[in-house]
Amino acid sequence: MAEAEATPVAHHLVVVGAGFAGLQLVRDLKGAGLRITLIDQRNHHLFQPLLYQVATTILATSEIAWPIRRLFRERADVTTLLAEVAGVDTERRQVLLEDGSAIGYDTLVLATGARHSYFGRDEWAALAPGLKTLEDATTIRRRMLLAFEQAERETDPEKRRALLTFAVIGAGPTGVELAGIIAELAKQILWQEFRHIDTRDARILLIEAGPRILAAFPETLSDYARAALQKLGVEVLLGRAVSEISAEGVTIGEEFVGCRTVVWAAGVAASPAAAWLGIPADRAGRASVDASLNAPGRPEIFVIGDTAAVATADGKPVPGIAPAAKQQGAYVARVIRARLAGAPPPAPFRYRHQGNLATIGKSAAVVDFGWLHLRGWIAWWFWGVIHIFFLIGARSRVAVAWSWFWTFISGQHSARLITQGQKGRDAGP
Amino acid sequence: MAEAEATPVAHHLVVVGAGFAGLQLVRDLKGAGLRITLIDQRNHHLFQPLLYQVATTILATSEIAWPIRRLFRERADVTTLLAEVAGVDTERRQVLLEDGSAIGYDTLVLATGARHSYFGRDEWAALAPGLKTLEDATTIRRRMLLAFEQAERETDPEKRRALLTFAVIGAGPTGVELAGIIAELAKQILWQEFRHIDTRDARILLIEAGPRILAAFPETLSDYARAALQKLGVEVLLGRAVSEISAEGVTIGEEFVGCRTVVWAAGVAASPAAAWLGIPADRAGRASVDASLNAPGRPEIFVIGDTAAVATADGKPVPGIAPAAKQQGAYVARVIRARLAGAPPPAPFRYRHQGNLATIGKSAAVVDFGWLHLRGWIAWWFWGVIHIFFLIGARSRVAVAWSWFWTFISGQHSARLITQGQKGRDAGP
Repeated sequence: MAEAEATPVAHHLVVVGAGFAGLQLVRDLKGAGLRITLIDQRNHHLFQPLLYQVATTILATSEIAWPIRRLFRERADVTTLLAEVAGVDTERRQVLLEDGSAIGYDTLVLATGARHSYFGRDEWAALAPGLKTLEDATTIRRRMLLAFEQAERETDPEKRRALLTFAVIGAGPTGVELAGIIAELAKQILWQEFRHIDTRDARILLIEAGPRILAAFPETLSDYARAALQKLGVEVLLGRAVSEISAEGVTIGEEFVGCRTVVWAAGVAASPAAAWLGIPADRAGRASVDASLNAPGRPEIFVIGDTAAVATADGKPVPGIAPAAKQQGAYVARVIRARLAGAPPPAPFRYRHQGNLATIGKSAAVVDFGWLHLRGWIAWWFWGVIHIFFLIGARSRVAVAWSWFWTFISGQHSARLITQGQKGRDAGP
Repeated sequence: MAEAEATPVAHHLVVVGAGFAGLQLVRDLKGAGLRITLIDQRNHHLFQPLLYQVATTILATSEIAWPIRRLFRERADVTTLLAEVAGVDTERRQVLLEDGSAIGYDTLVLATGARHSYFGRDEWAALAPGLKTLEDATTIRRRMLLAFEQAERETDPEKRRALLTFAVIGAGPTGVELAGIIAELAKQILWQEFRHIDTRDARILLIEAGPRILAAFPETLSDYARAALQKLGVEVLLGRAVSEISAEGVTIGEEFVGCRTVVWAAGVAASPAAAWLGIPADRAGRASVDASLNAPGRPEIFVIGDTAAVATADGKPVPGIAPAAKQQGAYVARVIRARLAGAPPPAPFRYRHQGNLATIGKSAAVVDFGWLHLRGWIAWWFWGVIHIFFLIGARSRVAVAWSWFWTFISGQHSARLITQGQKGRDAGP
């Protein structure tokens, strides 16, 4: 490590990714005496658990996103860089950026998250966008709203039927939450505004290859959520896999359903962190790490969050949710502090599961704490308070609370905008 | 006019454009017994006077835009269509849509607004975006924020200088308002967040070919506004025309200034309404209309708002501002009601000028009522109250008031997002 004669150069930590894991790590290293460079390909941290509400016109983009450098403006030890990482030179200890430049590190933490996985059918990406970024959310919002607009002008009954059919593929929390709000939009909110179509006729399909929705929840809550979705008008198809997606519709098993709006909520794949490091990965591409979240044989490199394969005490994979990412960020901060202090390393990382939550429309939710199950409106309120609490800063809390309050009292959504399409047409993903 | 045997078919009014003029017209025809079709190429009405605040990260897109069909959901007489108009067949009385279909009318009102004019240099459009749509605003926001991000990584001093130079061309209200907020962002807000650059070194140029800024205002207010801008750190260049714009910078007269972010606020041109009708237009492309805002020789066709050439009592052109558009919409509603009632036509349209307003940054403004001039913070508060008042609905009023209050107490902007760029790079306009 480079060291100047007079003043020792501070240990340089490079963190790639300012999601929940990376952000927690940098926060917990306040005052640790490091020089930290935080790299992200976006200028903002995104509160992904509420992204489905941007896609379904309840929230504005800026309500759930914060400029990363703003969050660390008072941390003179933190330099924020908007840049895309192309690889890692582990021998020279350098992060390689896409523009050809390189940034040396003493310690490296990769917290680069996950993207959608189309299970080898990457051509589906353009037809069935997933939901990971603000652009994904505005793309889904635009396509959904345009489908209603085009149906209003369409005279062919079959095409109109396809425009008024919405398919959500995958019934984890994101799929359930999207399907519930789309159903509410069509059945309760939009119908009064159209003259040639009745939006209440819209079909909302939630297609799940497994035997039940919300597979991570107890069966009683899954059953409750399915019934609640059906009451909202969602058709829940279980044990049915999508075999084909085209511009005209989806094929479910052998059955073709004409359908112009398809959303992908079925699978995720880790970022290429494992490939950058040349280390083993699991089936979803997540990098194998040891009990201290270190890359094998590389004590100076950590991998955390959705891009790391970490197991719980009973051998199950740690879920890809915000609390798990934050715990890993906090843990690695403790490891780094111990090393800097020459203290013994903390005990191996252990994931503490705090619970699972999912909403169904705007008045019901399911909450599973293990020891306590909540459902219905009480679960919805619990969910709402928790999410307001975890937003960053008073500004967003007030803005989101106001948007929700408005939706609650008026029954209307505040962000029903078609943007980025060329003159009202879909500009593609 | 078509008429059924038993029930007479209602008179069909087609309105193209849901800006201030078109919206006012449709509102004022409530209960008039017409069948109204309102066509717009966007799904939202936009509050353009605050668009510069979206471009400069103060407001979110959804705070100043409302779904058009939402506004008329309780008006069974109004059908909203998201569609692009390609022309008008005045003989057959049909509006021709871009998809090849046609919509017949009994009465037609064209309220299709204006776009930027680059004075014959259309190749400048990609280099110097103007500010008319939400996409324009997010494009300017992205370019401005990306320039600071790239400057932070740039090591070449000359390139860094160009990245930190921002040129606003045209010093009407929009140019003045943009330059003021960009200066505040650079000089007061962002500087604490960067480690390699001092954003306070940024140059903000406001370039005006005429002899003073805010030419529509009295000279004393122009002088005050110029001094206020200079105090914020804006370099105001008067009597200097831009002769060239390239990716590297702008040429002002003979002088080249390296500059990566250029915003166009210099000229507007009317929509092609006059060309659709085959009637004379003025130099800015605005359609000539008679004293009742009718197209010459076509009593069933009206042209209103920014796309019509209307003169004030003393022969000056009516300015392209929201109150003028609203007055024209309200006037034509009265003409149509009189005709339907068989009553004599109202007196010719007469524009009542209520005043001019412009803000300089977040603490000063100029207001000109003719009989009263306001400036400084009292003008700013007046401006703010007026604009909150003219927003549509309680939801937007609270949201905008909260965003402004937050900016006021925290000194921070709430919508500092780079979106729609491919992985942090500018995706182009």
